[in-house]
Amino acid sequence: MTEEGHNLLQQINTPDDLRKFSEKDLAQICGELREFIIDAVSCNPAHFGASLGVVELTVALHYVFNTPYDKLVWDVGHQAYGHKILTGRKNDFHSNRKYGGLSGFPNTFESKYDAFGVGHSSTSISAALGMAIAAEKNKEKNKQVVAIIGDGSMTAGLAFEGIINLSKSKSNMLVVLNDNRMAIDPNVGGLSDYLLDISTSQTYNKVRSEVLRGLEKLKITGPNSRGKIVAINNSIKALLTKQSNMFEGLNIRYFGPVDGHDINHLVKVLNDLKNIPGPKVLHCLTKKGKGFKLAEENQTAWHAPGARFNKLTGENLDSISKKPRPPRFQDVFGHTIVELAEKNDKILGITPAMPSGCSLNIMMEKMPDRAFDVGIAEQHAVTFSAGLAIDGMLPFCNIYSSFMQRAYDQVIHDVALQNLNVVFCLDRGGLVGADGATHHGVYDLAFFRPIPNMIISSPRNEEELRNLMYTAQLPDKGPFVIRYPRGLGCAVNWKTPLKELKIGKGQKLKEGSDLAFITIGPIANKALQACHKLDEQGISTALYDLRFIKPLDTEMLFEIFNKFNKIITVEDGTVVGGMGSAITEFMAENGFVAHIKKLGVPDKFIEHGTQTELQRDCGFDKQGMIEAAKSMFL
Amino acid sequence: MTEEGHNLLQQINTPDDLRKFSEKDLAQICGELREFIIDAVSCNPAHFGASLGVVELTVALHYVFNTPYDKLVWDVGHQAYGHKILTGRKNDFHSNRKYGGLSGFPNTFESKYDAFGVGHSSTSISAALGMAIAAEKNKEKNKQVVAIIGDGSMTAGLAFEGIINLSKSKSNMLVVLNDNRMAIDPNVGGLSDYLLDISTSQTYNKVRSEVLRGLEKLKITGPNSRGKIVAINNSIKALLTKQSNMFEGLNIRYFGPVDGHDINHLVKVLNDLKNIPGPKVLHCLTKKGKGFKLAEENQTAWHAPGARFNKLTGENLDSISKKPRPPRFQDVFGHTIVELAEKNDKILGITPAMPSGCSLNIMMEKMPDRAFDVGIAEQHAVTFSAGLAIDGMLPFCNIYSSFMQRAYDQVIHDVALQNLNVVFCLDRGGLVGADGATHHGVYDLAFFRPIPNMIISSPRNEEELRNLMYTAQLPDKGPFVIRYPRGLGCAVNWKTPLKELKIGKGQKLKEGSDLAFITIGPIANKALQACHKLDEQGISTALYDLRFIKPLDTEMLFEIFNKFNKIITVEDGTVVGGMGSAITEFMAENGFVAHIKKLGVPDKFIEHGTQTELQRDCGFDKQGMIEAAKSMFL
Repeated sequence: MTEEGHNLLQQINTPDDLRKFSEKDLAQICGELREFIIDAVSCNPAHFGASLGVVELTVALHYVFNTPYDKLVWDVGHQAYGHKILTGRKNDFHSNRKYGGLSGFPNTFESKYDAFGVGHSSTSISAALGMAIAAEKNKEKNKQVVAIIGDGSMTAGLAFEGIINLSKSKSNMLVVLNDNRMAIDPNVGGLSDYLLDISTSQTYNKVRSEVLRGLEKLKITGPNSRGKIVAINNSIKALLTKQSNMFEGLNIRYFGPVDGHDINHLVKVLNDLKNIPGPKVLHCLTKKGKGFKLAEENQTAWHAPGARFNKLTGENLDSISKKPRPPRFQDVFGHTIVELAEKNDKILGITPAMPSGCSLNIMMEKMPDRAFDVGIAEQHAVTFSAGLAIDGMLPFCNIYSSFMQRAYDQVIHDVALQNLNVVFCLDRGGLVGADGATHHGVYDLAFFRPIPNMIISSPRNEEELRNLMYTAQLPDKGPFVIRYPRGLGCAVNWKTPLKELKIGKGQKLKEGSDLAFITIGPIANKALQACHKLDEQGISTALYDLRFIKPLDTEMLFEIFNKFNKIITVEDGTVVGGMGSAITEFMAENGFVAHIKKLGVPDKFIEHGTQTELQRDCGFDKQGMIEAAKSMFL
Repeated sequence: MTEEGHNLLQQINTPDDLRKFSEKDLAQICGELREFIIDAVSCNPAHFGASLGVVELTVALHYVFNTPYDKLVWDVGHQAYGHKILTGRKNDFHSNRKYGGLSGFPNTFESKYDAFGVGHSSTSISAALGMAIAAEKNKEKNKQVVAIIGDGSMTAGLAFEGIINLSKSKSNMLVVLNDNRMAIDPNVGGLSDYLLDISTSQTYNKVRSEVLRGLEKLKITGPNSRGKIVAINNSIKALLTKQSNMFEGLNIRYFGPVDGHDINHLVKVLNDLKNIPGPKVLHCLTKKGKGFKLAEENQTAWHAPGARFNKLTGENLDSISKKPRPPRFQDVFGHTIVELAEKNDKILGITPAMPSGCSLNIMMEKMPDRAFDVGIAEQHAVTFSAGLAIDGMLPFCNIYSSFMQRAYDQVIHDVALQNLNVVFCLDRGGLVGADGATHHGVYDLAFFRPIPNMIISSPRNEEELRNLMYTAQLPDKGPFVIRYPRGLGCAVNWKTPLKELKIGKGQKLKEGSDLAFITIGPIANKALQACHKLDEQGISTALYDLRFIKPLDTEMLFEIFNKFNKIITVEDGTVVGGMGSAITEFMAENGFVAHIKKLGVPDKFIEHGTQTELQRDCGFDKQGMIEAAKSMFL
């Protein structure tokens, strides 16, 4: 990537530099910034469409507001690349999402311009309201706080809770609603239609004239007459445009919609809004992928292309090997749920806004009436599944592990307490790689384990994923968690016949006599390599895979602890409270004594990098296992 | 309680009996049902105001709908006493909320008329939508599904997620919005105003005529002209009444507001709605406490009076002892936060809709600009606290333990990951008593323990609660959990001078030589009694209180495990993953061997009863501890 031709952008290292330019230069700066992002992401795979969509908005916000004193709170944050490039990180941007490099999301530890750390959606309004009220308490009367939130993020309950509370506040806070009608996949649910611009409709324009004429005849007076007029105007506008009703109904001043790609108009509007006190919303229409034709045309595919590409043709530059390779666990899930659903008509598929990510889109295409994308709404996804299950359906609710943290109460209160037959397919279990600290799915085993009635499993490979899915849909299993990681499995030929697995039974994968590994999930495969290496080095190593963390295979554990006094537990998850903890509980309760080491994610937040790099750092890659084993014989 | 005079009600054991009466009898039945509830709750303390408010609605729903085939999904559920009385539980109602008796909430294990188990708010719309879609899949075309939700519950994000998804559905589902303008405390936030009936306003009535006249002149035609007319009508209605905008904006058919105490009108409206396909909302205005004057006048106090009362005068019949008794932990929290906030101007108080329950109302009265009731919105409460903290405020966010399950992701993602100074006062930690399985705060130690950066503490008594609160507000402590139970402490004179406690340091409460108890929280006081009893019986017993479960007092644990090989851990929380688990992790990691027993809440859901009864059943009351200790010497 080069800055050649980026004549203006190369003069900008901080927003102060940006603010020295005249307004007429901003369009060129936007063009250069967009080029810079395209250059960067074409060489270093990352999120793409969202940042292209907010180039003008980003430039306008930093141009108008006095950042970092004024606060920009980006929701989710993968639209914040332009923001990062304008705030001192242009020259490091090639390291975006790489080990040791920039985080893919705003991160308060990385820059004073990042007002709030993000990654999960829909936090911006609540966080910004906190900052706005902190500013009042700190007597910073002119401080401006801006939350920038997409229409996809608006569907989550947290955003609504924030709006409800904002509406009661008098704080100087601006919400920029970045309406591109997309989350990762097209935005679903009534809110999306609700935000749809129909201001061009002839009918509504006719109504507008009539209604306004009617209103002119009224003389509105009396107490709070200004409030009434604002309310009436807002409602009329809502009536006419069908937009932003929610905000206006809640008495939050609403402005827009404005063209989010008209930089000079944006600057003017934002300057105007800066002088209007109290909470307000600016509705901004943008196009995800703006300025890169292929991304505009296929927004889901170009949300995060995942490979280097030719920036002129869009061609994937990461050579794909001709030889067959294992499928992703996600693909196996997507095909297997269809296979099962064809035979079991009670099976339904549920995902909160991740159909392409978790591959439920395969079912959505083949069985559109049996697969539900509920939008960014993890809580609803789980309680909705409970409602389906209580009347005899068998929902497979697929949620990324770190997003399941959003639906914890619903799992306990709505599913487990009622012992309902809901299958939770917990995608992205374990360290996820480049998305980093916010997205690692490492707490799930620990937070699910204390919940009564739960079955908690993790397949070692694709075949086991299929068999666990098959087993989970057999009658009356109750709440059944199947946890698997992001990415490739290990078997090329994974379309094996389906068979039932015994609940709570693990498997001995390798005999040995000096030391035993106990694992759960695909990390078993690396452990097996470590065992063979240790055998070569004279340490006879056994390997047991639990497959279920709840219920525990106590029979197998008795065998292990009766035979071995050197044990290493390995899990792609937190060592506090997770599988290793379950094993130490077992030991203590049964009076076993052994020298035990627990490998897994240590008690700290893990940043981004490849899964391989992070497993190495956490000490539970193949080499880490070998070293841990050898250290027990020193 | 007697059925004397309840001439009609005594003929009703099931809704089928109710449906045999003619409409003209319904008013009398409502009167008798209301009397029955007043009689029952005056003798057996329970939730009160909510059920009185929905007497007519309850009778109308069972009269019109074919329950239990048709589904009534009560949100939260403490308004469902009338429902319970009409559905076969009249004669058992005296056992409401008692050990072995009826649950205080709808419970699918208790009755086929309870369509969905509840206790926490805002689940009804999502669950009912699941049932409505299950009915479609099961080809039950005429099945009716009704969610009954209060305006307080509507402020939670989950309800909004449900509404958004309902708006995209074609399911035959009715949402009854029971608008009494109250949660437990007066409902707060913009939504409440939003729902306020201003249809009597002269101004709006004038506008109405003008606008309607304007509309009449239009001839609306073309594609989807019906949809446009509905949308315009809805918006006009919204404009005129300022009600229900949210539903109409989302194209959910809205009806009302209706008088929720006019039984015959309710029956008529519900009958009409039964024949209207698709999703719809009926906005029902009710009065919490209706029919009991004192409850109407002081709705917060009579939400759940907590004592027997004279049903004529309202006088509290549970004699209060004249001698001084310890305060509730809640009172200590309420007074201490004010005491601290007077000296530390960064301290703010946050509660999601529980100001009277957690006693933040004391601060709200004395420092109204520094205490925030954010409504039923736990997720917002936490992320809002994070926003406050990141700009230098020190929020004390008080959330009941079981409701904290709703904000788990926000604690991880918004507070802990950013290592912010937020104090979480975790009220209702441990078994709560009569509220039962949905409300026990028993998972918190286990679900918080794996989160990096967290300090997790639990005071043994009021003085320690004060000192932990004092310690938590000292500079840069990071996320700090203080967990304490529902109810009375043990010290009469609790207003002790504040002092700093050392983070991660426990305390030896009693010396001994044969066996050691390790405890956390107020259960230590019962353990101390058990120790003395055991000493008398010849078993010399030591007692160590951890005070902090994170970080662990490893120095003290080394002392314990070096000295004792018989250990009993005791906690008012789940034994899976909780404090006992932390101890076994410590043992395994440090190669300690001991005979260990973990007492606490076992791996199953615990029903309702008094705290004493439930601790006994779980085996961690004084007697349980004594028996556990003695069994180790058999």
